[in-house]
Amino acid sequence: MLGHGADQNLLIASIMMRRMVTSLEPLYASPVDIRTEFSRELTDIENEMRSVIGERDGQARELYEQLSYHLGLDNADGPRGKRIRPLLGLLAYRSLGGDYDLALPGAAAVELGHNFSLVHDDIEDGDRERRHRPTLWAIWGIPLAINAGDALFALSRLALYRLLDGGVSEGRLLALMRRYDETCLALCEGQFLDITFEQQTDVGVAAYMEMISKKTAALIGAAIEAGAILATDDPEIHATYRELGNELGLAFQMADDVKGTFWSSEQSGKPEAGDLRRRKKTLPIVWAMEHAAEADAARLRSLYAPAEEPMSDAQVDETLEILVRCGARDHAQSEARRYRDRALSIIDGLSVDSEPQRQLRTLVEAVINP
Amino acid sequence: MLGHGADQNLLIASIMMRRMVTSLEPLYASPVDIRTEFSRELTDIENEMRSVIGERDGQARELYEQLSYHLGLDNADGPRGKRIRPLLGLLAYRSLGGDYDLALPGAAAVELGHNFSLVHDDIEDGDRERRHRPTLWAIWGIPLAINAGDALFALSRLALYRLLDGGVSEGRLLALMRRYDETCLALCEGQFLDITFEQQTDVGVAAYMEMISKKTAALIGAAIEAGAILATDDPEIHATYRELGNELGLAFQMADDVKGTFWSSEQSGKPEAGDLRRRKKTLPIVWAMEHAAEADAARLRSLYAPAEEPMSDAQVDETLEILVRCGARDHAQSEARRYRDRALSIIDGLSVDSEPQRQLRTLVEAVINP
Repeated sequence: MLGHGADQNLLIASIMMRRMVTSLEPLYASPVDIRTEFSRELTDIENEMRSVIGERDGQARELYEQLSYHLGLDNADGPRGKRIRPLLGLLAYRSLGGDYDLALPGAAAVELGHNFSLVHDDIEDGDRERRHRPTLWAIWGIPLAINAGDALFALSRLALYRLLDGGVSEGRLLALMRRYDETCLALCEGQFLDITFEQQTDVGVAAYMEMISKKTAALIGAAIEAGAILATDDPEIHATYRELGNELGLAFQMADDVKGTFWSSEQSGKPEAGDLRRRKKTLPIVWAMEHAAEADAARLRSLYAPAEEPMSDAQVDETLEILVRCGARDHAQSEARRYRDRALSIIDGLSVDSEPQRQLRTLVEAVINP
Repeated sequence: MLGHGADQNLLIASIMMRRMVTSLEPLYASPVDIRTEFSRELTDIENEMRSVIGERDGQARELYEQLSYHLGLDNADGPRGKRIRPLLGLLAYRSLGGDYDLALPGAAAVELGHNFSLVHDDIEDGDRERRHRPTLWAIWGIPLAINAGDALFALSRLALYRLLDGGVSEGRLLALMRRYDETCLALCEGQFLDITFEQQTDVGVAAYMEMISKKTAALIGAAIEAGAILATDDPEIHATYRELGNELGLAFQMADDVKGTFWSSEQSGKPEAGDLRRRKKTLPIVWAMEHAAEADAARLRSLYAPAEEPMSDAQVDETLEILVRCGARDHAQSEARRYRDRALSIIDGLSVDSEPQRQLRTLVEAVINP
């Protein structure tokens, strides 16, 4: 009876804890709906992606069906990503070069490349769900999912040659490709750090920053810079747009850390507290280990000690409690806001027309609203 | 006692079967030692690969150690691949363009790209051993191995920009890259077919040919064609070299099928009869199902019916017996020889100097000697 009573108390505490945590989440609601605000751009991006994939057929047709499924292109109203990276690229191009049609293959390439990394990340992280449906490996198994990710990698590069048809010069295309390939390698380095950090207890904020700058900010930076590379040969402008993307990418990952730690599964489309369960080194955690009161920090280190098994519900609840108590959640939110504001101030400083500038601002505010 | 005696009889039969099979293998011994014949070329290729990888460092250093391990670059005398693809590319370039220094980055790229696919194949096939040592995933686990393969993919592309330093024009580099990216996609289609065929009983010789032309011949074809692309803009010459590579690639895969079916682990560096155990659709199998006597074909179909478990030793022995009896092994060997001879006759027809022509011939004969 005692055991049963204790279980029940834990359950109630757990529910209360989750309620307390989720009650703060409306702060994250997007002020504008990206799908409405940028509906023409999104339609153009998805049509371009479809035409890159749709050219393929033959005996391996089911491979392309796997890709369409993962990309959310298999069903007009189906769940899909927010297409933030290609949107940012198109808006960056528009701010410098006007009509964005010429840049569409670049936008499709960056979204395909991003999704190659998602397909592999889902296997690496053991995630069975994304965007409220089963991940590719959860349906087709790990061997075919690894292969489907590789195919997306190859397709993302093949999309880029379509830029030549629009009149992009060979030199610009090569400059863009080189940035893209360097970014893919940075992505792998960031992923390497992310995975190996799971087995390390003492990961500081500095190591965390290097990890997310490679894992997330590099591709968002490259997506925006690609828009600039297609519009101008001026290296200073490239650098400004890349910096804008980097700040935004850091903000994005920090906000995503808050999501993966404190959001419910219903709100995030991912397993609840999935980052905690796998002992991912997110900003709230690495900051709390450095800044929480001694007893809390010691307890966190013990909860986060490398282990084969994911965290239990009770451990998740205890961790959440410590993170809220020591101010780690507030800190992560305010850091996300700070990097977002740095991105916004770069946008405000651009010497471009006011309409594309406003659109860039709108998108950034819609994506990161901590 | 009866059970025990039956087991022992099976064991003896199994050993005799393997002896019978392996007694024919000296046929496959290489007439020349590639490492001696092409020692300068191999040193140059491996130095180029080392310098592509060696530029990287920082917190993710261990990632590059994983790559060096897989590539056999971690130890001067360690086991490594035969570097057939980059060697073929260099010899193709030399036959048209003289000194091959300019083409080295292309050779390194093709070997890095080939190894990206090997790292992922080893996971997809569950192979724990390659070149007589543990595979990357068997040491570092699947998540880091998927990521290491991705890093090799990115590095193989980054190697290509080094061609610009040697004076290759932007147009030629883009032509080469496009072929390379198309080839990577073909590789994924071939791998898709290879994996899905494991769960199908009725795979005919025609479907098998499509699978290996994508899985294997495409990259060998592209490696040789790349040498031609770097040497000349003549599309007819590109096509001739590609065809040479395709014929050779088909021969190579057929010979590899014989190896994966009939060779001992000691000779192949891979798990003994690994292709059989996983019910891979190799040439001996698909041919036997179409050509063996009715009873044997029916038994093969039953042994090869999709199953979760790999084949037992007794099933492997029975399958081997059927394959030898119906002539499937002899047929696979003679098909490998036929395609190799087609490649040799293309080499003989090239309008090039006799020394590079002889070297191409020597390499082909060393690689495929069925």
